[in-house]
Amino acid sequence: MSLTNASPADAARAAKSASHVLATLSAEARNDALTAIHAGLTAARDEILAANARDLELARQAAADGKLSASLVSRLDLGKTGKWEDMLKGIWDVRDLEDPVGRVTLRTKLDDGLELERVTCPIGVLLIIFEARPEVIANIAALAVKSGNAAILKGGKESTESFVAISTAISNALSQTQVPNDAIQLVTTRESIPQLLALDRDIDLVIPRGSNELVRYIKENTKIPVLGHADGLCSIYLAASADAKLAADVVVDAKTSYPAACNSVETLLVQESALTTVFPAVASALAAKGVELRCDAASKAALSPEITTNIKDATAKDYDTEFLSLTLAVKTVPDLSAAIAHINTHGSHHTEAILTADQAEAERFMSAVDASGAYWNASTRFADGMRYGFGTEVGISTNKIHSRGPVGLEGLMIYKYKIRGQGHVSAVYGEGEGKKRFKHERLAI
Amino acid sequence: MSLTNASPADAARAAKSASHVLATLSAEARNDALTAIHAGLTAARDEILAANARDLELARQAAADGKLSASLVSRLDLGKTGKWEDMLKGIWDVRDLEDPVGRVTLRTKLDDGLELERVTCPIGVLLIIFEARPEVIANIAALAVKSGNAAILKGGKESTESFVAISTAISNALSQTQVPNDAIQLVTTRESIPQLLALDRDIDLVIPRGSNELVRYIKENTKIPVLGHADGLCSIYLAASADAKLAADVVVDAKTSYPAACNSVETLLVQESALTTVFPAVASALAAKGVELRCDAASKAALSPEITTNIKDATAKDYDTEFLSLTLAVKTVPDLSAAIAHINTHGSHHTEAILTADQAEAERFMSAVDASGAYWNASTRFADGMRYGFGTEVGISTNKIHSRGPVGLEGLMIYKYKIRGQGHVSAVYGEGEGKKRFKHERLAI
Repeated sequence: MSLTNASPADAARAAKSASHVLATLSAEARNDALTAIHAGLTAARDEILAANARDLELARQAAADGKLSASLVSRLDLGKTGKWEDMLKGIWDVRDLEDPVGRVTLRTKLDDGLELERVTCPIGVLLIIFEARPEVIANIAALAVKSGNAAILKGGKESTESFVAISTAISNALSQTQVPNDAIQLVTTRESIPQLLALDRDIDLVIPRGSNELVRYIKENTKIPVLGHADGLCSIYLAASADAKLAADVVVDAKTSYPAACNSVETLLVQESALTTVFPAVASALAAKGVELRCDAASKAALSPEITTNIKDATAKDYDTEFLSLTLAVKTVPDLSAAIAHINTHGSHHTEAILTADQAEAERFMSAVDASGAYWNASTRFADGMRYGFGTEVGISTNKIHSRGPVGLEGLMIYKYKIRGQGHVSAVYGEGEGKKRFKHERLAI
Repeated sequence: MSLTNASPADAARAAKSASHVLATLSAEARNDALTAIHAGLTAARDEILAANARDLELARQAAADGKLSASLVSRLDLGKTGKWEDMLKGIWDVRDLEDPVGRVTLRTKLDDGLELERVTCPIGVLLIIFEARPEVIANIAALAVKSGNAAILKGGKESTESFVAISTAISNALSQTQVPNDAIQLVTTRESIPQLLALDRDIDLVIPRGSNELVRYIKENTKIPVLGHADGLCSIYLAASADAKLAADVVVDAKTSYPAACNSVETLLVQESALTTVFPAVASALAAKGVELRCDAASKAALSPEITTNIKDATAKDYDTEFLSLTLAVKTVPDLSAAIAHINTHGSHHTEAILTADQAEAERFMSAVDASGAYWNASTRFADGMRYGFGTEVGISTNKIHSRGPVGLEGLMIYKYKIRGQGHVSAVYGEGEGKKRFKHERLAI
């Protein structure tokens, strides 16, 4: 790892060169590097925690002066119970994942002695821009090495001392491995971000890890593909046939189990004919958990006079708002089609759910909503790489190409085509007389 | 199909709405629409060829005035032998391809009664910007309908009458099918391009079909992902162990079978120790085909005095030039590593080949070159969707995410995750005591 004073352009060029070496290393060489990183961090524990304590000291002063939030200070703290151990365990977890490099996904016999093969390979150079949490640097370095990608890391200024200490340990560890030193670059100055975002020749993918504002800024200021999502405006459609207890359980989980998460529900669409049957039980369960409902006139009328606390009149803006808190917008819709239309217009293409006893209705919903996740009778909170069983999560993408939804290591891979021939030329193939035909036989993988 | 006078923004919004319907249609409904398009074009043959004749008449006048190239006039002509029939056959060919929509690519049992499924679905709205060839419109409309994507089509002004006639026929045909009318939109004014390129909320992918300049302009002027390649600077590395006849055959094919193609070779890298052994035979074969060699000093010296015609001194710029003609840059390199380094610095990440008898060397080359295609003892001209057996070609991508190399229908697809549960909530799962564990059992597809 280089802690570079070079210009962002030089850093990106060096990372690109290193990526070409990294892409050719064996799985064993990459896994050995992860073992070395783990050992290096373990050995440097005291220096790193001391550096982190200096960051924390400055951050606490800033918080006392009202310049920094207490939650940010808390996220900075590597000394919190279990955090250091989790960081180290994460490196081994990544190491033990299936190797994503060199997987053959297509083999075709084009002609005798002429074989086409599609094989997974690293994308190249990742730019990771993240905010305060210093343990992210170890996680990202591990993911990059495992996937054969070079990475340029840019962290938040509050954790600079921690980053430098961690990156020095990683750098020392990597220098004893086959992974080139330039493969992981740390950039520390904030001014470098716009410059890095302009380097679309050498940087292949940007992965922001932080607030909606950070992601939105990055998406709006680069032509490099961005993996992630700015918004998570998830909706649940409550159909009339839904079981009341099931619906209450799912909506409460989706709203209250972690309100600040991107996969929490923000809008509840209620079928008109469910207003007086299923909906009141759901509203009561939400009220019991302290959720404020922003209701349209019909849904409000359905609740009164039984439930009155925590109910407000919804405004149009509420249906476009990611509250990230114990607030839920409620809207009445006549039927499934209206629910789908609302979601496809107001949603953020993240995760949507339908609660219904009718399978045909559920299948139509899941096929028609334009989102990375479409669920039937399950909480939107399942949208997560670990919960999906990917072993890790690079991010959750609302993009329409490459990777969508929770992204594991696969999202850091692309493929190349290899052809192995024996001097084959193209001009002899064709439709005309005397021309050869391709065989195009699909071969076993 | 709408031939729209609406603003680009309205056209894109309408296409997005239509895409949500199109995405839910069955394979049968989409294939029926292709049958209808074929029949509609067949019935409208005379009107379309008459419109094309009017385009041709104007284009011939422009060519006579020196304002248009003869090759462009030739590409306009739908009346050329076989062109009309090929266009119609292409629609049936696309119809008969395997359905790309709704393919399950992952199934995981998260827990009892809770199943995760990853299923292919259309991307959404494609913007296709193409130049003169009017038959492209039928091809693209067919690919869009087959893949369940809506498309906005913008063609070159020289073939406006042909486009309008073809699109009217397609529109009439589609109006009798389940495909919504707004799913295929034709935009005719050139001023609309910058406006369309700004609509990154409603347009999901841009596919340019035309010159390098067109592609470069589009890539530089949009944040929407662009599928394609601006440059095709392909190289061949001639190693000392290569068989001379094999090498001559492959290099001649790669250079001369269609010099204007993006997959033609532009740079020949010659291993120093091959200069006086294999290289002269290759150079002689090229010279016999009228190829001009731009040689560095060492390669030039290796040829004289036997071959002197068509040899010029190379400049540095020649190694960054896509000649698209019977010109080939020749550079001497000491070994494989230097060849790989040259390609990864000067290449366009399109297609590269190595000619060698040494398998280990070939495998190292194919693993290390950063390109969508890496070939051993085969012509770079095989880089083509039809030749790869994809049945169609949407374009050739040099992108590092989503699709790379020749792109078939798969490149127009993304996926979504569906979860089918029975009221499952997330909060009960976790690592702590009393928490449930996910099962994460991979299920058969």
